[in-house]
Amino acid sequence: MSFINNWLRSDIQAINAYHVPASDDMVKLDAMESPFPLPDELIGQYLAYLADADLNRYPNPSADELRQTLRELMDIPAEFGVLLGNGSDELIQLLALACETGDTILSIEPSFVMYGMIAKFTRLNYQGVNLDHNFEIDLPATLSAIEAYNPKLIFIAYPNNPTGNTFDRSAIEKIITSTKAMVVLDEAYYAYADDSFLMDIAKYPNLVLLRTVSKIGFAGLRLGLLIGAQDTVNELDKLRLPYNINTLTQVSANFLLQEKEEIDKNAKAILAERTSLSDALNTIEGLVVYPSQANFILFKAPVADALFEALKTQGVLIKNLSAAPRLTDCLRVTVGSAQENAQFIEIVKNHYG
Amino acid sequence: MSFINNWLRSDIQAINAYHVPASDDMVKLDAMESPFPLPDELIGQYLAYLADADLNRYPNPSADELRQTLRELMDIPAEFGVLLGNGSDELIQLLALACETGDTILSIEPSFVMYGMIAKFTRLNYQGVNLDHNFEIDLPATLSAIEAYNPKLIFIAYPNNPTGNTFDRSAIEKIITSTKAMVVLDEAYYAYADDSFLMDIAKYPNLVLLRTVSKIGFAGLRLGLLIGAQDTVNELDKLRLPYNINTLTQVSANFLLQEKEEIDKNAKAILAERTSLSDALNTIEGLVVYPSQANFILFKAPVADALFEALKTQGVLIKNLSAAPRLTDCLRVTVGSAQENAQFIEIVKNHYG
Repeated sequence: MSFINNWLRSDIQAINAYHVPASDDMVKLDAMESPFPLPDELIGQYLAYLADADLNRYPNPSADELRQTLRELMDIPAEFGVLLGNGSDELIQLLALACETGDTILSIEPSFVMYGMIAKFTRLNYQGVNLDHNFEIDLPATLSAIEAYNPKLIFIAYPNNPTGNTFDRSAIEKIITSTKAMVVLDEAYYAYADDSFLMDIAKYPNLVLLRTVSKIGFAGLRLGLLIGAQDTVNELDKLRLPYNINTLTQVSANFLLQEKEEIDKNAKAILAERTSLSDALNTIEGLVVYPSQANFILFKAPVADALFEALKTQGVLIKNLSAAPRLTDCLRVTVGSAQENAQFIEIVKNHYG
Repeated sequence: MSFINNWLRSDIQAINAYHVPASDDMVKLDAMESPFPLPDELIGQYLAYLADADLNRYPNPSADELRQTLRELMDIPAEFGVLLGNGSDELIQLLALACETGDTILSIEPSFVMYGMIAKFTRLNYQGVNLDHNFEIDLPATLSAIEAYNPKLIFIAYPNNPTGNTFDRSAIEKIITSTKAMVVLDEAYYAYADDSFLMDIAKYPNLVLLRTVSKIGFAGLRLGLLIGAQDTVNELDKLRLPYNINTLTQVSANFLLQEKEEIDKNAKAILAERTSLSDALNTIEGLVVYPSQANFILFKAPVADALFEALKTQGVLIKNLSAAPRLTDCLRVTVGSAQENAQFIEIVKNHYG
C-alpha cells in the first residue's frame, strides 16, 4: 500500500476526482458562462491599464479599489462589509472553517454540490433537506431539520442551481428568523432574478450573501464576494488567507467591472434569450420546462441520456443531471447567444421529431 | 453582543487581523519581493498573448499548460506530480484539510507563521519545536517531539524564513525517515539556495515540496506549487477547489515563466547583491549578520526598534522581528536592487556612525 493511501483520510480517498468534460470546439452550454466576450474596443484600454501592474510586488492585501468597484456595480450599501474570494468556493470554505469541530452544515437538495463537498473537506457534518416536488422549499421539513440538527451554517442558493427557481421569500425569512445559524444565501445568479435579499442584510444579523462575477461575463476571473454586516465581515476576514486575490484579478476586475452598462446590457440580452429558449422548448412535445430566474433552464426530457448524447455528438455540450437524486431525466442548458440557442433547439427538435 | 461574537469560535475572534504596513512610495525591502519589473520588451508580447484569453469562460480546470511550464522552469521530473495553489498558503491549507480531526501539525520555530495560523484555521493541533541557538535544527528535541506528538504533517522551510539558513541535510533526512508524517519542505527560496530536496522525492514517499514564484519576480501572481509523488498529488488534488487557478494567472504565468533565462539572470543578480549587502552589514560594528541562502538577510542590531524606525522615517521599509520569540533585536532585510541596498546601508551606517 502506498504512503498516501495509509496517510489520507478514507472519506477523501473515496471521492472521485472532479471531472470536467472535454469541450474543445463545442458550443458550451453546460457551465452557466456568459456567451459574450469582451468588446474589442475595451480590450486595448484594458491591456494598457494592466501594463502598469507591478507583478513583482505582492497584491494590495485588502483589494480596496476592487471592493469599491463591486459596491458600485452591485449597489451594495456602504454600511455592509464585502469579503473577496477566489470564486464563491473559497468563501464557502472560509465559512466552513469558521465553524467548530462537530458542527453541521445544512442545505436544501438538489442544489449546488459544493456545499456538501466543502463540508466534507472541512470535516464538518452535512445535512441535506429535500425540496418538495415543485422544487420549492419544504418549510415544515426544513424547520424540523433545523430543530433536529442545530446547524451552524445554512446554505440556500437563490435562485437555486440546478433547478433555476427562486424560493418563496417568506419561507426563507422564516428560516432566517427561526435559527441561530448563519444563513448564507448564494445569489450567484442575482443578475437574472427578480428578487434579492441584499437589502435584508440590514434587517437580519445572521444573514450573509454570496455573489460572483462568473455568471455575468467573467468566469475566468474566479472572483466571488461575501456581503454581510460590517462586523461579521471584519471577523470572517481573519480567516482569509493573506493576499488571496492576486494582482491580475484585482487590476483586471477593477477595470472590467466598471463597465456596468455593458454588463447590464448583456444580462438583459440573456433574459430575452431565456424567454425565447424557454418558449421554444415548451413547443416540443414531451418536454417539461421548469421556470427559471437564472441564466440556465432545467427541463425534463424523455430518455434524457439519449438527447444529451445526441447533442454532444452534434457539438453542443449541456449538463446531464439525470443520474442525480430527484432529477431523473433532467437536463440543464445554459442560456447562450441567440445562435447557440438556435443550434441547441434545432437538435432537440430533430431528436424528438 | 452582536451575532458574530456569539457565532464565531473564540480562537478566531482572538486573532488580530493580519496587518500589512503602508508602503506607498517607500523602498520596499520587507517582503522578499524581487526588485526587477518585467522587461519593457516583454510587456507588449505578454499583453498580446493575454488579449486572447476568454474571460467569459471558466479556466482550464487542471491548468495543464502552466504546470508543464513550471516543470520546465524548475526541472521537475515527469514522474512527479504538480499541484497548483493561490500562493503556497492555499496548499498549506489543503494539506491541513487532508488531516483528520485531532491531528497535529509540527513545525520548527522561528519559521513561517502561516503553518501555525493555518493549523488554527483548520482546527488542528499545532506544536512548534525550537531551533537551537545557531538557528539549526535541534535534532534530539525534534525527534522527541515527533515521538511525543505523533504529528500528521511536519512543515520545514528550507531555506528557513526568517532565519535565512538551510538546515543540515542529514538532520532533515533523519526526520523524514523517523516519522509516518508527511514531511513538507517549503522551498519558497529555492532559487537562492545551494541545495534542494527536489530529487529526494523519488527516495522518500512521505516527502513533498512547496515552491512559489513569489520570490523570483512574480509575487503579484500568487502562484504556489506542491511537488510530490504522482499518486500523492492525485489524491491531494481531490481537495483542491474546482478551477482554483484563474485564467489570468494561468495565461500570464504560462507566458512569463517561460522566460527562464531572464529569471535565472535576475536570481544571479540577487545572489551577487546578497554577498555585497552581507559584506557591507558586516563592516558595521555591533551588528551580527546571519548567513543567508535566501533573498533576505537576518541581522541583529543594537536597539533594533530604533534602527527600524530610522529606516522607516527615511523611506526604507524592512521587517522588524525584534518582538518575536528568540529574535530579540533581529531585523530582516530583503535583498533589493543595488541602488535600494545602497540606500539601506547608508542609513544603517549613519544611524550607528
